[in-house]
Amino acid sequence: MLDNLNKFTCLKRGTAGAINIDPLQRGGVLTPEAREAVLEWADGYSVCDFCTGAMNKIENPPIKDFVHQALPEFLEVDQVRITHGAREGMFAAMHALCEKGETVVADGNAHYTTLLAAELAGLKVELTPASEKPDYRVDPQGYKEAIERAKGRGEKVGMAVLTYPDGNYGNLVDAKAVSEICHREDVHLMLNGAYSVGRMPVGARCLGADLIVGSGHKSMASSGPIGVLGATEELGTKIFRRSKLVPNKELEMLGCTLRGAGILTMMASFPHVVERTKCWDEEVEKARWFANEMEKLGMTLQGDRPHNHDLMFFKSEVLYEISQTAKKGRYFLYRELKKRKIFGIKPGLTRQFKLSTYLLAREELETVLAAFEEIVATHPKA
Amino acid sequence: MLDNLNKFTCLKRGTAGAINIDPLQRGGVLTPEAREAVLEWADGYSVCDFCTGAMNKIENPPIKDFVHQALPEFLEVDQVRITHGAREGMFAAMHALCEKGETVVADGNAHYTTLLAAELAGLKVELTPASEKPDYRVDPQGYKEAIERAKGRGEKVGMAVLTYPDGNYGNLVDAKAVSEICHREDVHLMLNGAYSVGRMPVGARCLGADLIVGSGHKSMASSGPIGVLGATEELGTKIFRRSKLVPNKELEMLGCTLRGAGILTMMASFPHVVERTKCWDEEVEKARWFANEMEKLGMTLQGDRPHNHDLMFFKSEVLYEISQTAKKGRYFLYRELKKRKIFGIKPGLTRQFKLSTYLLAREELETVLAAFEEIVATHPKA
Repeated sequence: MLDNLNKFTCLKRGTAGAINIDPLQRGGVLTPEAREAVLEWADGYSVCDFCTGAMNKIENPPIKDFVHQALPEFLEVDQVRITHGAREGMFAAMHALCEKGETVVADGNAHYTTLLAAELAGLKVELTPASEKPDYRVDPQGYKEAIERAKGRGEKVGMAVLTYPDGNYGNLVDAKAVSEICHREDVHLMLNGAYSVGRMPVGARCLGADLIVGSGHKSMASSGPIGVLGATEELGTKIFRRSKLVPNKELEMLGCTLRGAGILTMMASFPHVVERTKCWDEEVEKARWFANEMEKLGMTLQGDRPHNHDLMFFKSEVLYEISQTAKKGRYFLYRELKKRKIFGIKPGLTRQFKLSTYLLAREELETVLAAFEEIVATHPKA
Repeated sequence: MLDNLNKFTCLKRGTAGAINIDPLQRGGVLTPEAREAVLEWADGYSVCDFCTGAMNKIENPPIKDFVHQALPEFLEVDQVRITHGAREGMFAAMHALCEKGETVVADGNAHYTTLLAAELAGLKVELTPASEKPDYRVDPQGYKEAIERAKGRGEKVGMAVLTYPDGNYGNLVDAKAVSEICHREDVHLMLNGAYSVGRMPVGARCLGADLIVGSGHKSMASSGPIGVLGATEELGTKIFRRSKLVPNKELEMLGCTLRGAGILTMMASFPHVVERTKCWDEEVEKARWFANEMEKLGMTLQGDRPHNHDLMFFKSEVLYEISQTAKKGRYFLYRELKKRKIFGIKPGLTRQFKLSTYLLAREELETVLAAFEEIVATHPKA
């Protein structure tokens, strides 16, 4: 048995030379420096060559400086650790800081992993609902109400989470207002910055957040899975506490986390990542221009207007109508885009879909717009 | 601020062309196929290009076949998932299957991460002590006694763990005997195969194990961190249960785990890994020959005799004596080996150290032996 194993080798992504507009992908494309790093450090446990007991203390390569100096400054927090991703960072913080049975308050647009992290840590979740279409707005005041609802049921609120921005509509809630409300209620606020940390300027301190998670593979040009977890001194001391059984190891991290090439790709991309967050205004302007052009073709932008992020959600009755009679049915859009070497809208979607313009050149976006225009023009509507 | 960031780029391992005898590294060296895979799939979230909701169900690349067919057959288990590593697999199994306050019984040679996983899951640990030097043997009967000790204190034993082999001495305990003892006591047995899965033939079913974890970066020629967790149907159903809040996602995995290039490296190396486990007898023979040669130089092999694994622990009074007067003190051995392009013995160690001969050619091992011989011959002893 165990035959025909060659099917697992020599696999290609099949996206070479294509334009990828998947929001999940735009911020994770490696820099040339990170591509070099991944080849140099790809072997198994390579970062452990010169380890003296803890990954975040390795001085060569300079992981220690990165984790204890560069990242805290970048995230505006006191303590940072590398995690396997934003979700694992959220779980670690919730597991370490909340007691089983407590409640986490989160925004109605929260990523599903916020719910999973809370559930895995034995916590209940109370959502602050988002408004109806087309804006799907989360009102900071909703946090006060959600906290009060939970408290009214006799529950202790262990933490609040704000998805900043959310991964569906790219909406940016007034985090400062949320943190002020949470702190008045004596609740710590965690920002899920999977789509902000590494894309746009975001500092936990100036937004009033006590905790922040980011995603290397989503937004820090890193080879995944990898993320960051930042905390205030007070909360970091609790999350990154030492084990009782193995006193020189951090319990919540199970000793070490990213014992592989991923951390070196995050480091190699970091100078570029720091620079690109300074150009965020241009990215927002480009996203707005793109949305405006899409609307001329009959698609409707959902979420914040004007939009403040490259992640955008569109509704499109015209593409839905085409799908009713198109040869491949609801897969026609995916196939038509693929024909034009444009990837990233999930197969089967036509009536609504999300995409990102992040770090794409205007000419590339013009190619995308021309594709949509041609697809709409050349297909009969139902 | 955030200046001088270029120190995080263009970093080299500095081990090119060297012989690496670090047990942590030998089984994690990528195959040429895996090196191709890592470059092709290095971008952020690349494996999610064609995702329809769960990583282990992705058909292109064929992750589904790999996780649900190839790996279960390879590990002789019913269900497998990819984890961030062996330690994360142990935590997932303990967290899902044991109730807080229960006790995990483990061998006295257990890797520290077994203790961390249990502690993080809120469990106590009862060890079956290993014997004194030089053999550090774990007697299967010790499991019966440890289980009885815990039960005698009124504790429920939630799981037993056997480190197979342990990471210090490379000792292989009679797993079949341990599993029979555990099952008579109605306790499930988990094998920690971080140093066996991918190196030597190891099947959970024929050893009587209910659970098994392996390490991609330690022993499956994969870019870490990555591991595997296998379970019987009964236990797998519990560990890989769906979330109540997000019903299409597996709770204990936080939805998806290895959403990056690592899984593609494990797949690309898999045909080679399957083949190399068939040559295990040659690896053992080579290790025994090497140990014999080392003993001629005055080092003493610890652990199983004859030895059954490439991971070996040596004691060396002669190198210790040299370190008493050597120029660099206890760092002399590391430096002398480095001069000869041999890496993998931790800086500062002389009196005892571990190394591995895995997949090294006889000529390379002869180079290592000649280096030790020369170092001993050319240094005055205290």
